[in-house]
Amino acid sequence: MKTSLGWDGEAVIAVDQRALPGEYRLLRLVTVDELIGAIQSLAIRGAPALGLAGALGVALSALRRTATGNGVTEAVTADASRIAQARPTAVNLEWGVRRALGRLGDGPDAVLAEALAMIEEDTATNRAAALRAADLVLSLTERRPLRILTHCNTGRLATAAGGTALGAILELAERDCVAEVLVDETRPLLQGSRLTAWELGEAGVPYRICVDSAAAAAMARGLVDCVLVGADRIAANGDVANKIGTYGLAVAAAHHGIPFLVVAPESTWDRTLPEGSAILIEERDPAEVTHCAGTALAPVGAAVYNPAFDVTPASLITATVSEERTVSRPRTRDSGT
Amino acid sequence: MKTSLGWDGEAVIAVDQRALPGEYRLLRLVTVDELIGAIQSLAIRGAPALGLAGALGVALSALRRTATGNGVTEAVTADASRIAQARPTAVNLEWGVRRALGRLGDGPDAVLAEALAMIEEDTATNRAAALRAADLVLSLTERRPLRILTHCNTGRLATAAGGTALGAILELAERDCVAEVLVDETRPLLQGSRLTAWELGEAGVPYRICVDSAAAAAMARGLVDCVLVGADRIAANGDVANKIGTYGLAVAAAHHGIPFLVVAPESTWDRTLPEGSAILIEERDPAEVTHCAGTALAPVGAAVYNPAFDVTPASLITATVSEERTVSRPRTRDSGT
Repeated sequence: MKTSLGWDGEAVIAVDQRALPGEYRLLRLVTVDELIGAIQSLAIRGAPALGLAGALGVALSALRRTATGNGVTEAVTADASRIAQARPTAVNLEWGVRRALGRLGDGPDAVLAEALAMIEEDTATNRAAALRAADLVLSLTERRPLRILTHCNTGRLATAAGGTALGAILELAERDCVAEVLVDETRPLLQGSRLTAWELGEAGVPYRICVDSAAAAAMARGLVDCVLVGADRIAANGDVANKIGTYGLAVAAAHHGIPFLVVAPESTWDRTLPEGSAILIEERDPAEVTHCAGTALAPVGAAVYNPAFDVTPASLITATVSEERTVSRPRTRDSGT
Repeated sequence: MKTSLGWDGEAVIAVDQRALPGEYRLLRLVTVDELIGAIQSLAIRGAPALGLAGALGVALSALRRTATGNGVTEAVTADASRIAQARPTAVNLEWGVRRALGRLGDGPDAVLAEALAMIEEDTATNRAAALRAADLVLSLTERRPLRILTHCNTGRLATAAGGTALGAILELAERDCVAEVLVDETRPLLQGSRLTAWELGEAGVPYRICVDSAAAAAMARGLVDCVLVGADRIAANGDVANKIGTYGLAVAAAHHGIPFLVVAPESTWDRTLPEGSAILIEERDPAEVTHCAGTALAPVGAAVYNPAFDVTPASLITATVSEERTVSRPRTRDSGT
């Protein structure tokens, strides 16, 4: 499959991101409940991919509800609401659901056509944002080739294809400008070591995985020229919700005077929220932290603080890049040593 | 066993820290090679405990070499050198080895007596440092009860008994001043979720485990009043080598104006090193990062950056507390938001 999400004529097809890097497995999702389950279990993840999954889910609902009888609009609208609420932080999910639902009046085939068009669009959107971000990175840095640090997964798995922040890194690698990518493993679910490392290996780009807490030390040792991350929701003032750990990276990058770039499509901006403090942060199952591969890593019954995302204030972000524009902030180096 | 390390008349006894929290298991180490293996595999870990293990190892060597014949001094000195080099970063290991070796001229029983005296001393040392640090925390903070964040394990497992930073937290809990301890899980080897959580649970102190990268977000959300950590080596200028991740915590604490305290015995100071950049940082096996409980978490052959420690400059440390003194630094809040 050329994209991470698709349609086989009757069902949603998705790369099962839980099975990587051990196994490349496709899921076939026949019902809305199966789709919601795949989203909640992070078989499908990544803000842009969630938007596309949401749209495909509405198409799936429209086709099935139309086939089975009355009250189609009410039933599909209810399904759409459940899909949009499957995860709370990434705005793209409700954006994708809303956009597909907007075509319901034209019948289920129109909804499906909209969802499939969104997959095509996402590929082009990512390509445009990645090119823009790659140019910006080169304008902000001097050292060649670059050592780039990234967090979580923002590659083709997190999108229809191409990737956002990782798309920019792959573009820079195409231009022979990347010495090494430092890949934060991204606890608790290890999207960095499982998915980003897999994508970089597939592309033949040199990388090293590090534990998340080593990123600041790597900056201090001069191993990082630039940090590139994605976003799950961007408030009107430019504050960015992204995978837990992004905020600490931004604080450390500011402390070291290292450019910190966010790459995300326009659909990630939520102009209904004035600032990041209004973004709902999902807290996930303690077992994500206390267990790994079925083995307990903590005492039985240990309490856990497991926010899936954090909010980085716009003041710590060098630039936020989309397919259409670059939002840059004036930058001052922190006063600490 | 009342202490984490002891002597049963013929062998070194140690709590196997690899088996916790699932199992409380004692190791019986009969040879110097077994002791070195226990240190390198982190069955015995924690800077003060490493010093005591080093001293016990020299006693073990002296007793065995004396029993078997000639060239005792040369053989024990060679063993001592191997023990001291088992791990490079914690200065306490070579300190403990050197101190025990200094009694070799008085015979093997004198070496053993010195090692056992050091275990007694360490308990008293930790108690003094913990009381001093607890008083300091109360003088630096206003909120009661406190929310304290800690990293790695600095409790009775990392010392003879009592603990350093965790000893201070337990003392504050005794005084009814602790609402909650946020426990960094401490990747890759999870000394936080495995060992610190176990010790806090044993003591009945409320805690929550978080992934290391959530610490900065917790600070931003106002969940942290103070950060307490230990140290593996402190340079003459006050720069501190400690578990990887400590530096990022210190940067984030400074950014948020949160007191950041190091609690460590005087034996952790290495006055032969002018500053932290001279501290040798151990890089450990990539498998610590790429595998968990025997399961691969990353692509086969993935490259890894796995420094076990980082260096925090004295300028980011509010105070470093030992059994004898408190070294405080003037503090300015970072200019970032």
